[in-house]
Amino acid sequence: MTPSLLDAGTLPEALHDALRRAFGDRYSTADSVREQHGRGEAPFAAMPPNAVVFARSTQDVQDVLARCHAHRVPVIAFGAGSSLEGQLLATRGGVCIDLSQMNAVLKVDAGDFTATVQAGVTREQLNTALRAEGLFFPVDPGAHASLGGMAATRASGTNTVRYGSMRENVLALTVVLADGRVVQTGTRAAKSAAGYDLTRLFVGSEGTLGIITEVVLRLYPLPESVSAAVIAFPDTDAAVATVIEAIQAGLPIARSEYLCANSIRAINLAARELALREVPTLFLEFHGSPAALEEQVETLRELAAQHGGGDFAWAVHPEDRTRLWHARHNAYFSCQLSRPGSLVIATDTCVPRSRLAESIEGAGRIMADASFPSMIFGHVGDGNFHVLMVIDPGSEAEREEAEALNEAIVTLALSLGGTCTGEHGIGYHKKAFLRRETGDTAIELMQRIKAAVDPHGILNPDKIF
Amino acid sequence: MTPSLLDAGTLPEALHDALRRAFGDRYSTADSVREQHGRGEAPFAAMPPNAVVFARSTQDVQDVLARCHAHRVPVIAFGAGSSLEGQLLATRGGVCIDLSQMNAVLKVDAGDFTATVQAGVTREQLNTALRAEGLFFPVDPGAHASLGGMAATRASGTNTVRYGSMRENVLALTVVLADGRVVQTGTRAAKSAAGYDLTRLFVGSEGTLGIITEVVLRLYPLPESVSAAVIAFPDTDAAVATVIEAIQAGLPIARSEYLCANSIRAINLAARELALREVPTLFLEFHGSPAALEEQVETLRELAAQHGGGDFAWAVHPEDRTRLWHARHNAYFSCQLSRPGSLVIATDTCVPRSRLAESIEGAGRIMADASFPSMIFGHVGDGNFHVLMVIDPGSEAEREEAEALNEAIVTLALSLGGTCTGEHGIGYHKKAFLRRETGDTAIELMQRIKAAVDPHGILNPDKIF
Repeated sequence: MTPSLLDAGTLPEALHDALRRAFGDRYSTADSVREQHGRGEAPFAAMPPNAVVFARSTQDVQDVLARCHAHRVPVIAFGAGSSLEGQLLATRGGVCIDLSQMNAVLKVDAGDFTATVQAGVTREQLNTALRAEGLFFPVDPGAHASLGGMAATRASGTNTVRYGSMRENVLALTVVLADGRVVQTGTRAAKSAAGYDLTRLFVGSEGTLGIITEVVLRLYPLPESVSAAVIAFPDTDAAVATVIEAIQAGLPIARSEYLCANSIRAINLAARELALREVPTLFLEFHGSPAALEEQVETLRELAAQHGGGDFAWAVHPEDRTRLWHARHNAYFSCQLSRPGSLVIATDTCVPRSRLAESIEGAGRIMADASFPSMIFGHVGDGNFHVLMVIDPGSEAEREEAEALNEAIVTLALSLGGTCTGEHGIGYHKKAFLRRETGDTAIELMQRIKAAVDPHGILNPDKIF
Repeated sequence: MTPSLLDAGTLPEALHDALRRAFGDRYSTADSVREQHGRGEAPFAAMPPNAVVFARSTQDVQDVLARCHAHRVPVIAFGAGSSLEGQLLATRGGVCIDLSQMNAVLKVDAGDFTATVQAGVTREQLNTALRAEGLFFPVDPGAHASLGGMAATRASGTNTVRYGSMRENVLALTVVLADGRVVQTGTRAAKSAAGYDLTRLFVGSEGTLGIITEVVLRLYPLPESVSAAVIAFPDTDAAVATVIEAIQAGLPIARSEYLCANSIRAINLAARELALREVPTLFLEFHGSPAALEEQVETLRELAAQHGGGDFAWAVHPEDRTRLWHARHNAYFSCQLSRPGSLVIATDTCVPRSRLAESIEGAGRIMADASFPSMIFGHVGDGNFHVLMVIDPGSEAEREEAEALNEAIVTLALSLGGTCTGEHGIGYHKKAFLRRETGDTAIELMQRIKAAVDPHGILNPDKIF
């Protein structure tokens, strides 16, 4: 229990009774349920909502919002609970709507490369459903996130370098507004010039403008061939330069992940069978026809060699690739395992590609004297990387030190023309960074939009600004 | 002169005097200048502004807006004057800001594939500047449009099927708000999860939320090889099916333009040296390495053959390709030439690809009994096509008939899950269509955002809704 835990009684009694009557055992005020819904994977104490409703339909979400709107009670949407920046903290209590039971893949239009899903569908679930159609949805943040949550956070991930982020891959949304009304933000047409881009206004709005209940996604044909490679490098610069030059040469790399020596060490600890050399390393993936693949791989191998890249190892079999990407996705957890009982604070800066080496080296310098272990990995093709700080959750000193280091890394990224967050969002914890990044006028503009769309401020209060 | 032409005197005298003092001969109230700025290429009578300011800097735009805001006087931005839906009509008079003198390419960051340009730079000008860097900017609406105007209208065009529209290719904007303050909407980083997506809120807002003065664009490496093809088909269905199947097979076609027999006839009239067979035809373009190109072309040729496609002609030399695409881009004007003294009204529907054949056939049926000539061409890879109605501008009957046919074609597109505008925008003329497409709640949401961002409604009034 945390000090901020409020009593369920602080919900207006009429609202509490109405929700209980309407949702029966899909309405809960149990401490354990509230606690579980009051945090994501962020390394911060939970701030639980007063109650949780498990929604099964857009109509359920409309019901909750209409009632909470009438009572001026906060509402927070919950997908898979994998957010990292405190997006789920119920800073003012209120009702959390858990969307995980809205998990139906409603429609796959193979001819149009689109799928319509309920917000609680996870990307793995969708990709399993798509396999028989020869299609896939590429955005892959690593976490077992829900597609509604990924849209709300403007998530990206390992293959955004080729396929784009949620910004590019959401075609339309069904959104419930603060007062319970529903809006459809687009069509399944590939493009449109019809009015304001409401779809992209909601993508990345972190539940502060409306609650996403359905998502129309853009799909891609499963590549004819896939091939993955692991390359060891003498230093960070060499690894980063290889990827940048490959992209500049027009190579359509599907994934290009950098891992520092410490990251590889953590991965080796968690997955001994990989036995990777503990040096700066690239994990790469290529998609295409066999002939196109051969061309890409040859070019990449030459570029890597020019930068001293060696140990060029292939993962041709699907199982080998799965093991590799599984290890990469678990780097976060491997990192935590490397210091038992620890907690991980992750930075998320993204800079123009040409400044990436500078940005990573600078982060290395900033971290050099840290009193706790750290590691660096990231989506170098996008200019985005994470410094993972492995701290002792009981140590206020380490927490403060981590926050100061995070700020120094963000300051560097902003000075290089970058952003404080490539993919995790602002949430509760990066509000000061956002203001520094965009300036007061942009924040004031966002606040005006928020006030226009959610006049009573009930939707996920205290987030973004 | 049109009946709606207002006197310059209707601008508040204090504003008129202040603008004249501030801008000297870059401030004009001459009838000819106002008339020229009171329409685009839309087939409707001009509604001129009271005055025109020729801006040379963001500061100039700030000055005009701050003054007009204080006087509650409308302001309309003007780029190249190539809009098609009445975006430039000064329905309530006011001041037009001509941005064509803001035509500097400010910065090309070749390593990051980004360019920063002033709003008045045209895409041709940018591409000329980029050639030496081995880069290009792909979005190509045909018209000699300005990049600021293209951003404001969310333009796309012939190679959007591969490279996306302005939605995907604008990284950040400098925008002057209604009260004269400036906002930067993003960074040059390839992706970001930092707050609301202000960039995409302004992209497609048609000058109603702010005036775009600078644009940061995403660039691409010039393809190693380019190859174009012309294929004749027995009917529309066969041509459309060939493209759809190619896309479904994962072929990264760079351009896939359909032209009906009438369109080819018009093109032949204007460019006799092409001497194309007057049947449904595809103009295609492929980008890639020589090996990748060969693969793509072979697949396409096989698909076309299966659908009875013949006369497979190649345009390998750059001059031949230029001639081909020039002819395609001039189809609009060729169309007009085919009936001397005529005026063209163009539809712009876009549907999910799988419904495209149905949509084009339906449009053909709708047009069958029209009392004027028409032709159909479009970006079939995106599901977007235009019916060009070649009417007598003096005939009110033809005009009314054209509007009724346009509405029938939009109704069909909406019933197929599409949009009333793929790339021309809503402007003054498609407002009723937008409401039918998105519904009242979405329109009300857009209006709330408009009121929040431009409280006095001075920015391009009476557009979109």
